[in-house]
Amino acid sequence: MNRTGLPDPISKLINELSKLPGIGEKNATRLAFHIFRAQDSYAQSLSRAIIDTKTKVIVCTTCFNFASHSPCTICKDTERDPDSICVVEEPLDQLAIERSRGFTGRYHVLNGVISPIDGIGPEDLRIKELIARVERESVKEVIVATNPSVEGEATALYLAKLIKPLGIEVSRIAHGVPMGGDIEYIDEITLSKAIRDRKHI
Amino acid sequence: MNRTGLPDPISKLINELSKLPGIGEKNATRLAFHIFRAQDSYAQSLSRAIIDTKTKVIVCTTCFNFASHSPCTICKDTERDPDSICVVEEPLDQLAIERSRGFTGRYHVLNGVISPIDGIGPEDLRIKELIARVERESVKEVIVATNPSVEGEATALYLAKLIKPLGIEVSRIAHGVPMGGDIEYIDEITLSKAIRDRKHI
Repeated sequence: MNRTGLPDPISKLINELSKLPGIGEKNATRLAFHIFRAQDSYAQSLSRAIIDTKTKVIVCTTCFNFASHSPCTICKDTERDPDSICVVEEPLDQLAIERSRGFTGRYHVLNGVISPIDGIGPEDLRIKELIARVERESVKEVIVATNPSVEGEATALYLAKLIKPLGIEVSRIAHGVPMGGDIEYIDEITLSKAIRDRKHI
Repeated sequence: MNRTGLPDPISKLINELSKLPGIGEKNATRLAFHIFRAQDSYAQSLSRAIIDTKTKVIVCTTCFNFASHSPCTICKDTERDPDSICVVEEPLDQLAIERSRGFTGRYHVLNGVISPIDGIGPEDLRIKELIARVERESVKEVIVATNPSVEGEATALYLAKLIKPLGIEVSRIAHGVPMGGDIEYIDEITLSKAIRDRKHI
């Protein structure tokens, strides 16, 4: 028991849950009570899934995405276009692009972006491995899909400087007005970029 | 591996996390990736806390709140006012009132409210146990702190009908404008109630 009058195991669970991103103490409390009330099997399988994620998931040594095996399914898939590699910051970005079905090549997960303010330099990212890979796999194009942030843009430029001299094309995903977006509410930087990068129809 | 290209353990974890209230699939994905990236010790202690909550937390057989032992710390505490019992819907309500330090008596958790639409009748709640308890403990006042909803009000009236004939006072927590609230934004029902229940100063 503790000062809140809650049993220790629940307090402990609230404490652990509130370490998760975007989960405050109130939310953690609600989740903990839900877990307490749910069937035993739910707590068992949630707990098991957490442990399995830590013990059974590895990182693909080719693209550095999460995987069950290395090389991962995408790196091994001979039906995918071997000519292009899409560079992303994080596995979640790879997932979003894969879901869009807009890309048929392979991926490379940088594991972040160059950000001097956070002490992250090129050597902290999987850039060395990307360079070795594009040369080894005779890639024709590297599409840089880092986020449209200052760091994402800087990283894209940095990669272009390294890769273009190897005779490999480097491209950047298009920036502009998102589909379904309302021009009235789009920020000025995006709008000016959308106008500058206009396409003839 | 599955259609999303995510390793099975992560997919499984996303699936389990998205069963939690208020956690959608996108949010669950973010949490799962966080767990994957966090230190091993975090996954261990989160997983352990989940299991402990299910195995070590019991329900107090007096007040029906969660507890490590039965009777719980509050029910056992001889310094608390034995004359009044505050009736709440859920353990979280008890927790909120306890945090307010506005009540020094004991609690009784109904485990819901009467709601014919959801098929919840008085027999599904801890009402029988409440009646037995107020008689056994010679309680002088029952404060009904169910939520200010239609079901909460109906349950309060139902309890008053049962308990008043036993010669025990039944009261309802005050409804009105919340402290720090902005009258401009308070709904009409609350405002009209706040005016009707005005207090002379």
